[in-house]
Amino acid sequence: MKLYYFPKAPHARKVLIFLVEKGLSLELIQVDLEKKENLKEAFLAKNSRGVVPVLELDDGTCIDESLAICRYLEALNPEPPLFGSTPLEKALVDSWDRHMEFDGYLPGQDAFRNSAERFANYAVAGVQEPVKAIPALAERGMQRIDIFFKRLDERLAEVPYVAGTQFSMADITGVVAVDMTKRVNKFLPESLEHAQRWYRAMYERESVSSTYVVHK
Amino acid sequence: MKLYYFPKAPHARKVLIFLVEKGLSLELIQVDLEKKENLKEAFLAKNSRGVVPVLELDDGTCIDESLAICRYLEALNPEPPLFGSTPLEKALVDSWDRHMEFDGYLPGQDAFRNSAERFANYAVAGVQEPVKAIPALAERGMQRIDIFFKRLDERLAEVPYVAGTQFSMADITGVVAVDMTKRVNKFLPESLEHAQRWYRAMYERESVSSTYVVHK
Repeated sequence: MKLYYFPKAPHARKVLIFLVEKGLSLELIQVDLEKKENLKEAFLAKNSRGVVPVLELDDGTCIDESLAICRYLEALNPEPPLFGSTPLEKALVDSWDRHMEFDGYLPGQDAFRNSAERFANYAVAGVQEPVKAIPALAERGMQRIDIFFKRLDERLAEVPYVAGTQFSMADITGVVAVDMTKRVNKFLPESLEHAQRWYRAMYERESVSSTYVVHK
Repeated sequence: MKLYYFPKAPHARKVLIFLVEKGLSLELIQVDLEKKENLKEAFLAKNSRGVVPVLELDDGTCIDESLAICRYLEALNPEPPLFGSTPLEKALVDSWDRHMEFDGYLPGQDAFRNSAERFANYAVAGVQEPVKAIPALAERGMQRIDIFFKRLDERLAEVPYVAGTQFSMADITGVVAVDMTKRVNKFLPESLEHAQRWYRAMYERESVSSTYVVHK
Protein backbone atom coordinates (compact mmCIF):
# COMPACT_ATOMS: atom_id res chain seq x y z
CA MET A 1 0.00 0.00 0.00
CA LYS A 2 1.13 3.53 -0.80
CA LEU A 3 -0.17 6.80 0.55
CA TYR A 4 0.00 9.87 -1.67
CA TYR A 5 0.13 12.96 0.50
CA PHE A 6 1.46 16.48 0.93
CA PRO A 7 2.57 17.67 4.38
CA LYS A 8 0.66 20.96 4.20
CA ALA A 9 -2.60 19.36 3.05
CA PRO A 10 -4.90 19.11 6.09
CA HIS A 11 -6.78 16.00 5.00
CA ALA A 12 -3.51 14.22 4.28
CA ARG A 13 -2.30 15.21 7.74
CA LYS A 14 -5.34 13.49 9.26
CA VAL A 15 -4.16 10.21 7.78
CA LEU A 16 -0.58 10.84 8.96
CA ILE A 17 -1.81 11.42 12.52
CA PHE A 18 -3.95 8.29 12.27
CA LEU A 19 -0.96 6.20 11.15
CA VAL A 20 1.20 7.34 14.08
CA GLU A 21 -1.64 6.65 16.54
CA LYS A 22 -2.01 3.17 15.08
CA GLY A 23 1.73 2.51 14.97
CA LEU A 24 1.48 1.81 11.24
CA SER A 25 3.87 2.76 8.50
CA LEU A 26 3.08 2.90 4.81
CA GLU A 27 5.10 3.84 1.79
CA LEU A 28 4.61 7.61 1.58
CA ILE A 29 4.75 9.39 -1.76
CA GLN A 30 4.76 13.15 -1.72
CA VAL A 31 2.67 14.97 -4.32
CA ASP A 32 3.78 18.60 -4.34
CA LEU A 33 0.58 20.63 -4.57
CA GLU A 34 2.52 23.89 -4.79
CA LYS A 35 4.26 22.60 -7.94
CA LYS A 36 0.86 21.33 -9.16
CA GLU A 37 2.08 17.74 -9.37
CA ASN A 38 -1.47 16.78 -8.42
CA LEU A 39 -2.72 18.08 -11.77
CA LYS A 40 -0.29 16.00 -13.84
CA GLU A 41 -1.71 13.10 -15.79
CA ALA A 42 0.10 10.45 -13.74
CA PHE A 43 -1.64 11.56 -10.56
CA LEU A 44 -5.00 12.38 -12.13
CA ALA A 45 -5.09 8.76 -13.33
CA LYS A 46 -5.12 7.78 -9.64
CA ASN A 47 -7.52 10.53 -8.57
CA SER A 48 -9.43 12.56 -11.13
CA ARG A 49 -10.07 15.35 -8.62
CA GLY A 50 -6.35 15.89 -8.14
CA VAL A 51 -6.56 15.80 -4.35
CA VAL A 52 -4.55 14.11 -1.61
CA PRO A 53 -4.63 11.87 0.35
CA VAL A 54 -5.03 8.85 -1.89
CA LEU A 55 -4.36 5.30 -0.71
CA GLU A 56 -3.22 2.97 -3.48
CA LEU A 57 -3.61 -0.73 -2.78
CA ASP A 58 -1.21 -3.34 -4.12
CA ASP A 59 -3.58 -4.20 -6.98
CA GLY A 60 -3.71 -0.56 -8.06
CA THR A 61 -7.14 0.24 -6.57
CA CYS A 62 -7.18 3.80 -5.27
CA ILE A 63 -9.22 5.08 -2.32
CA ASP A 64 -9.65 8.79 -1.77
CA GLU A 65 -11.18 10.79 1.09
CA SER A 66 -9.27 10.84 4.37
CA LEU A 67 -12.14 9.40 6.40
CA ALA A 68 -12.65 6.50 4.00
CA ILE A 69 -8.91 5.77 4.08
CA CYS A 70 -8.74 5.87 7.88
CA ARG A 71 -11.79 3.66 8.30
CA TYR A 72 -10.28 1.19 5.82
CA LEU A 73 -7.03 1.12 7.79
CA GLU A 74 -9.02 0.65 11.01
CA ALA A 75 -10.81 -2.38 9.52
CA LEU A 76 -7.44 -3.99 8.75
CA ASN A 77 -5.84 -2.88 12.04
CA PRO A 78 -8.53 -2.66 14.71
CA GLU A 79 -6.27 -1.76 17.66
CA PRO A 80 -6.36 0.78 19.16
CA PRO A 81 -9.88 1.63 17.97
CA LEU A 82 -10.06 5.22 16.72
CA PHE A 83 -13.64 5.00 15.46
CA GLY A 84 -15.11 3.58 18.69
CA SER A 85 -15.76 -0.03 19.69
CA THR A 86 -19.50 -0.48 20.27
CA PRO A 87 -22.17 0.63 17.75
CA LEU A 88 -23.06 3.58 20.00
CA GLU A 89 -19.43 4.67 20.42
CA LYS A 90 -18.97 4.42 16.67
CA ALA A 91 -22.07 6.54 16.07
CA LEU A 92 -20.82 9.22 18.45
CA VAL A 93 -17.37 9.30 16.83
CA ASP A 94 -19.04 9.55 13.43
CA SER A 95 -21.34 12.34 14.53
CA TRP A 96 -18.69 14.38 16.34
CA ASP A 97 -16.22 13.93 13.53
CA ARG A 98 -18.79 15.55 11.26
CA HIS A 99 -19.34 18.37 13.73
CA MET A 100 -15.61 19.08 13.74
CA GLU A 101 -15.55 19.09 9.96
CA PHE A 102 -18.73 21.08 9.32
CA ASP A 103 -18.48 23.50 12.25
CA GLY A 104 -14.74 24.02 12.12
CA TYR A 105 -12.86 22.76 9.14
CA LEU A 106 -15.22 23.95 6.41
CA PRO A 107 -15.60 27.51 7.78
CA GLY A 108 -11.80 27.66 8.08
CA GLN A 109 -11.47 26.47 4.52
CA ASP A 110 -14.08 29.00 3.35
CA ALA A 111 -12.13 31.78 5.04
CA PHE A 112 -8.80 30.63 3.61
CA ARG A 113 -9.70 29.68 0.05
CA ASN A 114 -11.74 32.84 -0.47
CA SER A 115 -9.06 35.23 0.73
CA ALA A 116 -5.68 33.73 -0.31
CA GLU A 117 -4.52 35.38 -3.51
CA ARG A 118 -3.38 32.18 -5.18
CA PHE A 119 -6.88 30.72 -5.04
CA ALA A 120 -8.64 33.82 -6.43
CA ASN A 121 -9.86 31.88 -9.46
CA TYR A 122 -9.76 28.35 -8.05
CA ALA A 123 -11.58 28.79 -4.79
CA VAL A 124 -13.00 25.28 -4.40
CA ALA A 125 -10.69 22.41 -3.44
CA GLY A 126 -10.99 19.43 -5.77
CA VAL A 127 -12.61 21.44 -8.57
CA GLN A 128 -10.29 22.19 -11.48
CA GLU A 129 -12.81 24.33 -13.33
CA PRO A 130 -12.30 28.03 -12.50
CA VAL A 131 -14.44 29.11 -9.54
CA LYS A 132 -14.05 32.69 -8.27
CA ALA A 133 -13.30 33.53 -4.65
CA ILE A 134 -16.13 35.22 -2.73
CA PRO A 135 -14.85 37.74 -0.16
CA ALA A 136 -18.19 37.66 1.72
CA LEU A 137 -17.76 33.90 2.16
CA ALA A 138 -14.33 34.46 3.68
CA GLU A 139 -16.00 36.84 6.14
CA ARG A 140 -18.73 34.32 6.90
CA GLY A 141 -16.00 31.76 7.53
CA MET A 142 -14.41 34.09 10.10
CA GLN A 143 -17.76 34.56 11.83
CA ARG A 144 -18.38 30.82 11.90
CA ILE A 145 -14.92 30.05 13.30
CA ASP A 146 -15.91 32.01 16.42
CA ILE A 147 -19.08 29.91 16.72
CA PHE A 148 -16.98 26.77 16.30
CA PHE A 149 -14.55 27.74 19.07
CA LYS A 150 -17.46 28.39 21.42
CA ARG A 151 -19.17 25.09 20.65
CA LEU A 152 -15.89 23.20 20.97
CA ASP A 153 -15.30 24.70 24.41
CA GLU A 154 -18.84 23.85 25.54
CA ARG A 155 -18.37 20.25 24.42
CA LEU A 156 -14.99 19.90 26.09
CA ALA A 157 -16.37 21.27 29.34
CA GLU A 158 -18.41 18.05 29.49
CA VAL A 159 -15.99 15.40 28.25
CA PRO A 160 -12.21 15.00 27.95
CA TYR A 161 -12.19 14.14 24.24
CA VAL A 162 -14.40 15.36 21.41
CA ALA A 163 -16.41 12.15 21.09
CA GLY A 164 -16.43 11.35 24.82
CA THR A 165 -14.01 9.48 27.06
CA GLN A 166 -11.58 8.17 24.45
CA PHE A 167 -9.24 9.75 21.92
CA SER A 168 -10.74 9.18 18.47
CA MET A 169 -10.90 10.25 14.85
CA ALA A 170 -13.07 13.17 15.98
CA ASP A 171 -10.09 14.59 17.90
CA ILE A 172 -7.91 14.25 14.81
CA THR A 173 -10.42 16.12 12.66
CA GLY A 174 -10.87 18.63 15.48
CA VAL A 175 -7.21 19.51 15.84
CA VAL A 176 -6.81 19.79 12.07
CA ALA A 177 -9.84 22.09 12.02
CA VAL A 178 -8.38 24.33 14.75
CA ASP A 179 -5.06 24.45 12.93
CA MET A 180 -6.85 25.41 9.70
CA THR A 181 -8.06 28.58 11.40
CA LYS A 182 -4.45 29.64 11.99
CA ARG A 183 -4.11 30.11 8.24
CA VAL A 184 -6.46 33.06 8.49
CA ASN A 185 -4.89 34.32 11.72
CA LYS A 186 -7.64 33.09 13.97
CA PHE A 187 -6.49 31.42 17.17
CA LEU A 188 -8.37 29.47 19.80
CA PRO A 189 -8.97 32.15 22.48
CA GLU A 190 -7.04 31.75 25.71
CA SER A 191 -10.28 32.34 27.60
CA LEU A 192 -11.78 29.07 26.36
CA GLU A 193 -10.15 26.95 29.03
CA HIS A 194 -11.72 23.61 28.19
CA ALA A 195 -10.85 23.80 24.51
CA GLN A 196 -7.37 25.03 25.44
CA ARG A 197 -6.81 22.12 27.84
CA TRP A 198 -7.80 19.69 25.08
CA TYR A 199 -5.72 21.44 22.42
CA ARG A 200 -2.61 21.35 24.62
CA ALA A 201 -3.23 17.65 25.33
CA MET A 202 -3.46 17.03 21.61
CA TYR A 203 -0.05 18.60 21.05
CA GLU A 204 1.44 16.36 23.72
CA ARG A 205 0.75 13.47 21.36
CA GLU A 206 3.60 12.72 19.00
CA SER A 207 1.11 12.05 16.22
CA VAL A 208 -0.13 15.64 16.32
CA SER A 209 3.08 17.52 17.09
CA SER A 210 5.23 15.63 14.60
CA THR A 211 2.85 16.27 11.70
CA TYR A 212 2.35 20.00 12.22
CA VAL A 213 3.75 22.15 9.45
CA VAL A 214 3.65 25.93 9.57
CA HIS A 215 1.86 27.04 6.45
CA LYS A 216 -0.10 29.88 4.98
CA MET B 1 -35.93 4.03 19.60
CA LYS B 2 -37.53 7.15 18.18
CA LEU B 3 -36.61 9.08 15.09
CA TYR B 4 -37.24 12.83 15.06
CA TYR B 5 -37.68 13.96 11.48
CA PHE B 6 -39.41 16.32 9.08
CA PRO B 7 -40.52 15.06 5.66
CA LYS B 8 -39.05 18.01 3.76
CA ALA B 9 -35.66 17.85 5.49
CA PRO B 10 -33.23 16.13 3.10
CA HIS B 11 -31.02 14.55 5.77
CA ALA B 12 -34.07 13.15 7.55
CA ARG B 13 -35.24 11.73 4.22
CA LYS B 14 -31.94 9.85 3.90
CA VAL B 15 -32.78 7.98 7.10
CA LEU B 16 -36.37 7.32 5.93
CA ILE B 17 -35.05 5.82 2.67
CA PHE B 18 -32.56 3.76 4.65
CA LEU B 19 -35.30 2.39 6.94
CA VAL B 20 -37.45 1.26 3.99
CA GLU B 21 -34.45 -0.39 2.31
CA LYS B 22 -33.72 -2.24 5.55
CA GLY B 23 -37.35 -3.16 6.19
CA LEU B 24 -37.15 -1.46 9.58
CA SER B 25 -39.76 0.64 11.30
CA LEU B 26 -39.16 3.05 14.14
CA GLU B 27 -41.41 5.34 16.09
CA LEU B 28 -41.40 8.52 13.99
CA ILE B 29 -41.89 11.90 15.61
CA GLN B 30 -42.39 14.85 13.35
CA VAL B 31 -40.65 18.11 14.23
CA ASP B 32 -42.20 20.85 12.11
CA LEU B 33 -39.30 23.00 10.96
CA GLU B 34 -41.65 25.47 9.27
CA LYS B 35 -43.33 26.10 12.61
CA LYS B 36 -39.86 26.26 14.21
CA GLU B 37 -40.63 23.39 16.57
CA ASN B 38 -36.94 22.51 16.26
CA LEU B 39 -36.02 25.70 18.11
CA LYS B 40 -38.24 24.97 21.11
CA GLU B 41 -36.56 24.03 24.35
CA ALA B 42 -37.91 20.47 24.37
CA PHE B 43 -36.22 19.68 21.09
CA LEU B 44 -33.06 21.70 21.73
CA ALA B 45 -32.55 19.55 24.82
CA LYS B 46 -32.25 16.59 22.47
CA ASN B 47 -30.17 18.42 19.86
CA SER B 48 -28.63 21.79 20.62
CA ARG B 49 -28.25 22.57 16.90
CA GLY B 50 -31.98 22.24 16.35
CA VAL B 51 -31.61 19.95 13.37
CA VAL B 52 -33.26 16.73 12.27
CA PRO B 53 -32.83 13.79 12.03
CA VAL B 54 -32.15 12.78 15.63
CA LEU B 55 -32.31 9.18 16.83
CA GLU B 56 -33.26 8.85 20.48
CA LEU B 57 -32.38 5.54 22.12
CA ASP B 58 -34.49 3.97 24.86
CA ASP B 59 -32.14 5.29 27.55
CA GLY B 60 -32.51 8.84 26.24
CA THR B 61 -29.16 9.01 24.42
CA CYS B 62 -29.52 11.07 21.25
CA ILE B 63 -27.55 10.58 18.05
CA ASP B 64 -27.57 13.24 15.37
CA GLU B 65 -26.16 13.31 11.82
CA SER B 66 -27.93 11.15 9.25
CA LEU B 67 -24.83 9.17 8.36
CA ALA B 68 -24.05 8.35 11.99
CA ILE B 69 -27.65 7.26 12.52
CA CYS B 70 -27.68 5.06 9.42
CA ARG B 71 -24.36 3.45 10.28
CA TYR B 72 -25.65 2.77 13.80
CA LEU B 73 -28.79 1.13 12.41
CA GLU B 74 -26.62 -0.90 10.03
CA ALA B 75 -24.52 -2.19 12.94
CA LEU B 76 -27.69 -3.44 14.67
CA ASN B 77 -29.29 -4.72 11.44
CA PRO B 78 -26.53 -5.80 9.07
CA GLU B 79 -28.76 -7.13 6.25
CA PRO B 80 -28.92 -6.00 3.51
CA PRO B 81 -25.60 -4.19 3.81
CA LEU B 82 -25.93 -0.58 2.67
CA PHE B 83 -22.40 0.46 3.65
CA GLY B 84 -20.66 -2.42 1.84
CA SER B 85 -19.49 -5.80 3.18
CA THR B 86 -15.70 -6.02 2.83
CA PRO B 87 -13.31 -3.31 4.07
CA LEU B 88 -12.70 -2.20 0.47
CA GLU B 89 -16.41 -2.03 -0.36
CA LYS B 90 -16.99 -0.05 2.81
CA ALA B 91 -14.21 2.37 1.89
CA LEU B 92 -15.69 2.92 -1.55
CA VAL B 93 -19.20 3.51 -0.16
CA ASP B 94 -17.71 5.96 2.34
CA SER B 95 -15.73 7.80 -0.30
CA TRP B 96 -18.55 7.98 -2.86
CA ASP B 97 -21.05 9.01 -0.24
CA ARG B 98 -18.82 11.98 0.51
CA HIS B 99 -18.51 12.79 -3.18
CA MET B 100 -22.29 12.89 -3.45
CA GLU B 101 -22.52 15.15 -0.44
CA PHE B 102 -19.65 17.50 -1.23
CA ASP B 103 -20.07 17.64 -5.03
CA GLY B 104 -23.85 17.66 -5.08
CA TYR B 105 -25.68 18.20 -1.85
CA LEU B 106 -23.60 21.07 -0.47
CA PRO B 107 -23.61 23.12 -3.71
CA GLY B 108 -27.39 22.58 -3.90
CA GLN B 109 -27.72 23.73 -0.32
CA ASP B 110 -25.49 26.76 -1.00
CA ALA B 111 -27.71 27.70 -3.94
CA PHE B 112 -30.92 27.22 -1.96
CA ARG B 113 -30.06 28.71 1.42
CA ASN B 114 -28.46 31.78 -0.13
CA SER B 115 -31.37 32.62 -2.41
CA ALA B 116 -34.56 31.62 -0.55
CA GLU B 117 -36.06 34.70 1.06
CA ARG B 118 -36.87 33.01 4.37
CA PHE B 119 -33.20 32.22 4.99
CA ALA B 120 -31.91 35.72 4.18
CA ASN B 121 -30.60 36.15 7.72
CA TYR B 122 -30.19 32.49 8.70
CA ALA B 123 -28.30 31.13 5.75
CA VAL B 124 -26.43 28.31 7.48
CA ALA B 125 -28.30 25.16 8.51
CA GLY B 126 -27.74 24.22 12.15
CA VAL B 127 -26.50 27.69 13.13
CA GLN B 128 -29.01 29.74 15.11
CA GLU B 129 -26.85 32.85 15.21
CA PRO B 130 -27.81 35.23 12.35
CA VAL B 131 -25.70 34.60 9.24
CA LYS B 132 -26.48 36.62 6.09
CA ALA B 133 -27.18 35.02 2.74
CA ILE B 134 -24.51 35.55 0.06
CA PRO B 135 -25.99 35.87 -3.45
CA ALA B 136 -22.58 35.09 -5.05
CA LEU B 137 -22.52 31.81 -3.13
CA ALA B 138 -25.93 30.90 -4.55
CA GLU B 139 -24.46 31.53 -8.01
CA ARG B 140 -21.41 29.43 -7.22
CA GLY B 141 -23.76 26.68 -6.09
CA MET B 142 -25.53 26.80 -9.47
CA GLN B 143 -22.19 26.54 -11.27
CA ARG B 144 -21.10 23.63 -9.13
CA ILE B 145 -24.37 21.74 -9.63
CA ASP B 146 -23.51 21.56 -13.36
CA ILE B 147 -20.09 20.13 -12.47
CA PHE B 148 -21.79 17.61 -10.14
CA PHE B 149 -24.21 16.44 -12.84
CA LYS B 150 -21.33 15.90 -15.26
CA ARG B 151 -19.24 13.97 -12.72
CA LEU B 152 -22.23 11.86 -11.71
CA ASP B 153 -22.87 10.93 -15.34
CA GLU B 154 -19.21 10.02 -15.88
CA ARG B 155 -19.26 7.79 -12.82
CA LEU B 156 -22.50 6.07 -13.80
CA ALA B 157 -21.16 5.40 -17.30
CA GLU B 158 -18.73 3.02 -15.57
CA VAL B 159 -20.85 1.35 -12.89
CA PRO B 160 -24.56 0.75 -12.27
CA TYR B 161 -24.62 2.29 -8.77
CA VAL B 162 -22.71 5.21 -7.32
CA ALA B 163 -20.32 3.11 -5.23
CA GLY B 164 -20.04 0.23 -7.75
CA THR B 165 -22.11 -2.88 -8.34
CA GLN B 166 -24.48 -2.67 -5.35
CA PHE B 167 -27.09 -0.20 -4.17
CA SER B 168 -25.69 1.60 -1.12
CA MET B 169 -25.81 4.63 1.13
CA ALA B 170 -23.98 6.54 -1.61
CA ASP B 171 -27.03 6.16 -3.87
CA ILE B 172 -29.28 7.45 -1.10
CA THR B 173 -27.11 10.53 -0.61
CA GLY B 174 -26.87 10.89 -4.39
CA VAL B 175 -30.60 10.90 -5.03
CA VAL B 176 -31.18 13.34 -2.17
CA ALA B 177 -28.46 15.57 -3.64
CA VAL B 178 -30.08 15.53 -7.09
CA ASP B 179 -33.47 16.29 -5.57
CA MET B 180 -31.96 19.20 -3.64
CA THR B 181 -31.06 20.85 -6.95
CA LYS B 182 -34.76 20.90 -7.91
CA ARG B 183 -35.32 23.45 -5.16
CA VAL B 184 -33.34 25.93 -7.22
CA ASN B 185 -34.92 24.81 -10.49
CA LYS B 186 -31.94 22.83 -11.68
CA PHE B 187 -32.74 19.46 -13.20
CA LEU B 188 -30.52 16.59 -14.22
CA PRO B 189 -30.14 17.19 -17.98
CA GLU B 190 -31.88 14.69 -20.26
CA SER B 191 -28.65 14.44 -22.27
CA LEU B 192 -26.82 12.77 -19.37
CA GLU B 193 -28.07 9.31 -20.17
CA HIS B 194 -26.12 7.36 -17.58
CA ALA B 195 -27.17 9.59 -14.71
CA GLN B 196 -30.73 9.59 -16.03
CA ARG B 197 -30.81 5.78 -16.19
CA TRP B 198 -29.63 5.61 -12.59
CA TYR B 199 -32.04 8.32 -11.41
CA ARG B 200 -35.01 6.54 -13.00
CA ALA B 201 -33.90 3.26 -11.38
CA MET B 202 -33.75 5.03 -8.01
CA TYR B 203 -37.35 6.17 -8.37
CA GLU B 204 -38.43 2.61 -9.13
CA ARG B 205 -37.48 1.83 -5.53
CA GLU B 206 -40.31 2.27 -3.06
CA SER B 207 -37.88 3.74 -0.53
CA VAL B 208 -37.09 6.66 -2.82
CA SER B 209 -40.48 7.29 -4.43
CA SER B 210 -42.49 7.01 -1.21
CA THR B 211 -40.32 9.55 0.62
CA TYR B 212 -40.29 12.24 -2.04
CA VAL B 213 -42.03 15.43 -1.03
CA VAL B 214 -42.39 18.38 -3.40
CA HIS B 215 -40.87 21.34 -1.63
CA LYS B 216 -39.38 24.70 -2.28
